[in-house]
Amino acid sequence: MPYFDTASAAPLHPVARQALLAALDEGWADPARLYREGRRARLLLDAAREAAAQAVGCRPDELAFTPSGTRALHSAVAGAAAGRRRTGRHLVLSAVEHSAVLHAAEPYDTTSVGVDRAGRVDPGVFAAALRPDTALAALQSANHEVGTVQPVAEVAEACRAAGVPLLVDAAQSLAWGPVAGRWSLLAGSAHKWGGPPGVGLLVVRKGTRYAPQEPADERESGRSPGFENLPAIVAAAASLRAVRAEAAAEAARLSALVDRIRVRVPQLVPDVEVVGHDRLRLPHLVTFSCLYVDGEALLTGLDRAGFSVSSGSSCTSSTLTPSHVLKAMGVLSEGNVRVSLPAGTSEEEVTRFLAALPEVVAEVRGRLGAPSSGTEAAPVADAVPVEPGADLLVDSLGKRCPIPVIELAKVIGDVPVGGLITVLSDDEAARLDIPAWCAMRDQEYAGERPAERGTAYLVRRRV
Amino acid sequence: MPYFDTASAAPLHPVARQALLAALDEGWADPARLYREGRRARLLLDAAREAAAQAVGCRPDELAFTPSGTRALHSAVAGAAAGRRRTGRHLVLSAVEHSAVLHAAEPYDTTSVGVDRAGRVDPGVFAAALRPDTALAALQSANHEVGTVQPVAEVAEACRAAGVPLLVDAAQSLAWGPVAGRWSLLAGSAHKWGGPPGVGLLVVRKGTRYAPQEPADERESGRSPGFENLPAIVAAAASLRAVRAEAAAEAARLSALVDRIRVRVPQLVPDVEVVGHDRLRLPHLVTFSCLYVDGEALLTGLDRAGFSVSSGSSCTSSTLTPSHVLKAMGVLSEGNVRVSLPAGTSEEEVTRFLAALPEVVAEVRGRLGAPSSGTEAAPVADAVPVEPGADLLVDSLGKRCPIPVIELAKVIGDVPVGGLITVLSDDEAARLDIPAWCAMRDQEYAGERPAERGTAYLVRRRV
Repeated sequence: MPYFDTASAAPLHPVARQALLAALDEGWADPARLYREGRRARLLLDAAREAAAQAVGCRPDELAFTPSGTRALHSAVAGAAAGRRRTGRHLVLSAVEHSAVLHAAEPYDTTSVGVDRAGRVDPGVFAAALRPDTALAALQSANHEVGTVQPVAEVAEACRAAGVPLLVDAAQSLAWGPVAGRWSLLAGSAHKWGGPPGVGLLVVRKGTRYAPQEPADERESGRSPGFENLPAIVAAAASLRAVRAEAAAEAARLSALVDRIRVRVPQLVPDVEVVGHDRLRLPHLVTFSCLYVDGEALLTGLDRAGFSVSSGSSCTSSTLTPSHVLKAMGVLSEGNVRVSLPAGTSEEEVTRFLAALPEVVAEVRGRLGAPSSGTEAAPVADAVPVEPGADLLVDSLGKRCPIPVIELAKVIGDVPVGGLITVLSDDEAARLDIPAWCAMRDQEYAGERPAERGTAYLVRRRV
Repeated sequence: MPYFDTASAAPLHPVARQALLAALDEGWADPARLYREGRRARLLLDAAREAAAQAVGCRPDELAFTPSGTRALHSAVAGAAAGRRRTGRHLVLSAVEHSAVLHAAEPYDTTSVGVDRAGRVDPGVFAAALRPDTALAALQSANHEVGTVQPVAEVAEACRAAGVPLLVDAAQSLAWGPVAGRWSLLAGSAHKWGGPPGVGLLVVRKGTRYAPQEPADERESGRSPGFENLPAIVAAAASLRAVRAEAAAEAARLSALVDRIRVRVPQLVPDVEVVGHDRLRLPHLVTFSCLYVDGEALLTGLDRAGFSVSSGSSCTSSTLTPSHVLKAMGVLSEGNVRVSLPAGTSEEEVTRFLAALPEVVAEVRGRLGAPSSGTEAAPVADAVPVEPGADLLVDSLGKRCPIPVIELAKVIGDVPVGGLITVLSDDEAARLDIPAWCAMRDQEYAGERPAERGTAYLVRRRV
């Protein structure tokens, strides 16, 4: 049963399991104690720090182990901003950072740097957002939802020139290699590279101003309070080393599989948008969105067919809003699927996925009564516009993604070319998906305006 | 090789190891995901929460898993104080709380409630410290250094009457049973009961005002950000249940062994003060201090003899100050040893410890040139007071515990009864150990006054 959601959590690497078991026996004691069990634990901790630092490309004393990547990011934002509180409270972030960075940045005055349709930041635009009162900048090494690799080295140089420290969220890329460039802070997460959960990395380069915001604690240079999760730390470091030893070969192999998915999915399934950069991307991750498809139903269908994937569609989020990443990219969010292949994924598994996908999508579309591909605007013989002005109103209030888009598609043929359709919707996904549909169907998106209930989205028939 | 430092970290319970292994295979995926691996992880997480809640005596939705007991305490203090920020910024804590509580309380206006020589809080004194602007009170269930059990239920009632929530640090006692009384918040730590490191418990009873101070995160009811450390959580819950099943029998057995240590150590080793309450105490923990002994040398000697214990002596702390617990109790801190027996400790191991201790202590005392027990004040034939006023000055500046006390003891016989000795010391431990020595030797401690360098401690010969 193929598991294709490594970007959420990678299955435990065999080396991690082995190291964890050994460390449970040798490393359960307090490494701060002077007796033999404590000294043994200390040796294990020191060795793990050495190994992790080598893999990251930093000094061991620059690296602290935290309880998770999320906590590493939280600490990094708060600690670096406090370290430079005299400079100001302004942060610069890309719009597609992980929610852990966005939430940690909430108390600050933040500039969000947009991305292109591939999800990539423009280094010049990022540099232009730096201000004299900028305390910290943050840019991920690669995006967690669409796999796009960011120009970290260039942005790091711009930050250096402006005297602003750069925090890199390297959670998605650390399995594949160190992050190039002269960044100041870095965070990672072991369970993304095949290590156990419960371990994050927080790197603060020497010379970076940093004032921990957690209560005082002697462990991990005062940067991560609480008893060290030593067995898991040992396993995390050992597995990072193991994963890196296989990284080049595995990256080439998985990247070919991802290329195959990128090419074949739009051929096999009508009305699919593959999102994210086609070259500057993580080797193992691909994301696409399927028109007229309910993301949750798609996930359930794929799960039933034996494939575990995740989605950035609004219906799969607890807030019923589409992923902020897809939103920032301005791409379709409905029927969204993220496939992230674990190391060792076979060609045959990908073949089976490609064989199963079209039927699952067709089944969901059929159930939703979605129009057939490309037939939407075929002039309907008895199409009679409601008003002489040739305009139509589609009331989709109370209906969730992808229904508003399906209802729009169903009536576009009912207005003449030049006619206007107004879609009333209170679904947050419509704001993203109606313009995306217009772009895919070559119809004109004429903007939105507030309505008595929800929002009115205006679409003018062009073809 | 007996390990007697369970209060720092308990060796992993066999059930914890077993559960951890099983959960590594079944519970590595993201419990927030809808596919089968995620659902399986969710089931494990829910079951672990049920089990832990039952052991604590709370509802499952009142309990969040945190990365450590320390983080649970940090979150609890900040979250509960913020939840009642309109009431005020005043906290009431016992003077012997764990440093995680004390550090978390630093930003607030805090009243520290003292303890008696046994380390126990007086509920009436605690209640009297509550004020109209008290946002939170905190009291441990039992002390981590001396094992004294606190009157939590009575203090909880007083807090309830005053409308103040009570936070209980139950890290040391959770292995033995739930905490009685109507407390509002509770924290625990799995590696103290034989679970793995990386798991703490944070319980917030329904109706308690609580505003998490970490950045927003959907996991653990928003009370503990970051990917759940699921295999360790499963192991923590399973081992808590296993430990509880054995608790009554093991408590009786270990308590008898501790009683034996409490009785035998002062018989076997001269000039020992057993500290902590003799009845209202944890079943497995005993602490004593040895006059004229360097704590670090004692620990090293015991380690060489095969025994792992810890110490609250100043020389074993990175800050060179004695434990704040021993300080609050006003007891001797030099040559301090904490013995905390893990489950399964045999009578024979305790026998071996009692056999080894006297020689190790004697060896350290010999090396330090400590006076023989009870001979200090024997009038020395050629004792000539420095001044006609019959007073003596002992310059111990730059010397560390237990040297100032040893130097005092060596000259007490040199002054006549009624004569005054002034000990100059810049060692923080002297403030605690010189009065303690006076009490043990029935000499009069006449107070301290600032000196040009360090502090002058005044001792008047009484016998």
